[in-house]
Amino acid sequence: MEKFKRSERLVAITKYLVDHPRALISLGFFSELFTAAKSTISEDLVIVRDTLDSFGMGLLETLPGAGGGVKFLPQIGQDETARFLYELSEKLSQPERIIPGGFLYMTDLLFDPAVSNKVGTIFATQFAHLNPAAVITIETKGIPLALMTAKALNVPLVVIRNDSRVTEGSSVSINYVSGSTRRIQTMSLPRRALAKGSRVVLIDDFMKAGGTAKGMLELLEEFEVQVLGVGVLVRNVDPTEKLVTDYFCLLDLAEIDEHQRKIKIRPTVQ
Amino acid sequence: MEKFKRSERLVAITKYLVDHPRALISLGFFSELFTAAKSTISEDLVIVRDTLDSFGMGLLETLPGAGGGVKFLPQIGQDETARFLYELSEKLSQPERIIPGGFLYMTDLLFDPAVSNKVGTIFATQFAHLNPAAVITIETKGIPLALMTAKALNVPLVVIRNDSRVTEGSSVSINYVSGSTRRIQTMSLPRRALAKGSRVVLIDDFMKAGGTAKGMLELLEEFEVQVLGVGVLVRNVDPTEKLVTDYFCLLDLAEIDEHQRKIKIRPTVQ
Repeated sequence: MEKFKRSERLVAITKYLVDHPRALISLGFFSELFTAAKSTISEDLVIVRDTLDSFGMGLLETLPGAGGGVKFLPQIGQDETARFLYELSEKLSQPERIIPGGFLYMTDLLFDPAVSNKVGTIFATQFAHLNPAAVITIETKGIPLALMTAKALNVPLVVIRNDSRVTEGSSVSINYVSGSTRRIQTMSLPRRALAKGSRVVLIDDFMKAGGTAKGMLELLEEFEVQVLGVGVLVRNVDPTEKLVTDYFCLLDLAEIDEHQRKIKIRPTVQ
Repeated sequence: MEKFKRSERLVAITKYLVDHPRALISLGFFSELFTAAKSTISEDLVIVRDTLDSFGMGLLETLPGAGGGVKFLPQIGQDETARFLYELSEKLSQPERIIPGGFLYMTDLLFDPAVSNKVGTIFATQFAHLNPAAVITIETKGIPLALMTAKALNVPLVVIRNDSRVTEGSSVSINYVSGSTRRIQTMSLPRRALAKGSRVVLIDDFMKAGGTAKGMLELLEEFEVQVLGVGVLVRNVDPTEKLVTDYFCLLDLAEIDEHQRKIKIRPTVQ
């Protein structure tokens, strides 16, 4: 007789898989955990896979063979993505979000774990097939989105800093001009933060002219990494010509009218 | 006949609950999702609760009555916490982590989603009973730990910045002296970031003399919030007298010997 009932195994397996996205878990691991035959675990996993699939809750990938096992891939469907981005646009359109100078206050939403988790899963769904080895962002407001993307992809996050720190050893720095501040700034990354030849994706919260993203790409050239993709939550529609051409964007900020207290923001048409 | 089998419902319920920590989910929600009777859902939830409990995977709290439902509370047991902190100490003891000047390189681990998720769950387990309405940290390296704590507590994260930003409106700033830089710095928080009277917990990655934590407490006084607890990942043992007295700490950094290439770091004895 099995030590645990199927119902119990299903709950524990689901919890474990969701907590370990994209990690390869061997059948032997579950078989030991539940003192159950591998064939029993196999049957459990079919139920888990089919259920997650039919509820649009992610994919369970099976890798056959001795070194095989299962991997849970967090995914978010097109309908749920569209609904979430519509709701986020609505929230970002509230007139009280207009900051003097014509800026949009987004910080509360960027730092909301529920929002960043969802945005991270959307980016992970987009970039997972490229098999990145790390997610890169620049401090500060992009960090939650990038961390949740890294979590869903099960890879480390690397954060470019605005100056070099004594506590991080020797660094590579470059200067860049960001659209929001319109002044020359420095960005810097410790030499030890990133191995040469890594395959990475870039995540940031906002793009205006693309100066920051271009700076990041230039800095990363120094590390000889391969940038597989760039993901941005909000793009300012103006200027239409960005310094970076190839990026995946979720929301378009078309207009902030400080006088009329109106914000036009909408999901990007991909 | 039910539209979904019990096995399918258990997988989907577990996934949904894990994705929505500390959110109150009504029986009606699951009942509609599965076109199943509430009594059936009740039985499912008993299985989920007992299984999570017996595997130390968290608590499922049941709130009775018309406005009731269930809440999944992420929790991490004492044994797993001890094991994780021991392993983290081992990783942090690697001599190549010594940075000239006698600093300890921790950034890669702080930004590792697996590490920050675990640390966040430990802090959430510690502070959940205080029912905080927000988690506060200061940029940059504490953000992942604080975000994951906020995620496990299902509350927003508020990040104190090192200078005020044009894109965030009017701010309150104070000066403070941090132990690591030994110079006067500014920390700042937008007025709109935090409602008066909020009950909050503070999370940071490192404490030396406690100057930064003390600065955060002073800044938060201006917002008239109630600080319920302070959580720190690593404390430098020296100086033993900190500027902040009441805090919960996970690791003690006793010594970095740059010459002998030795680091002494160990789990804090609570």
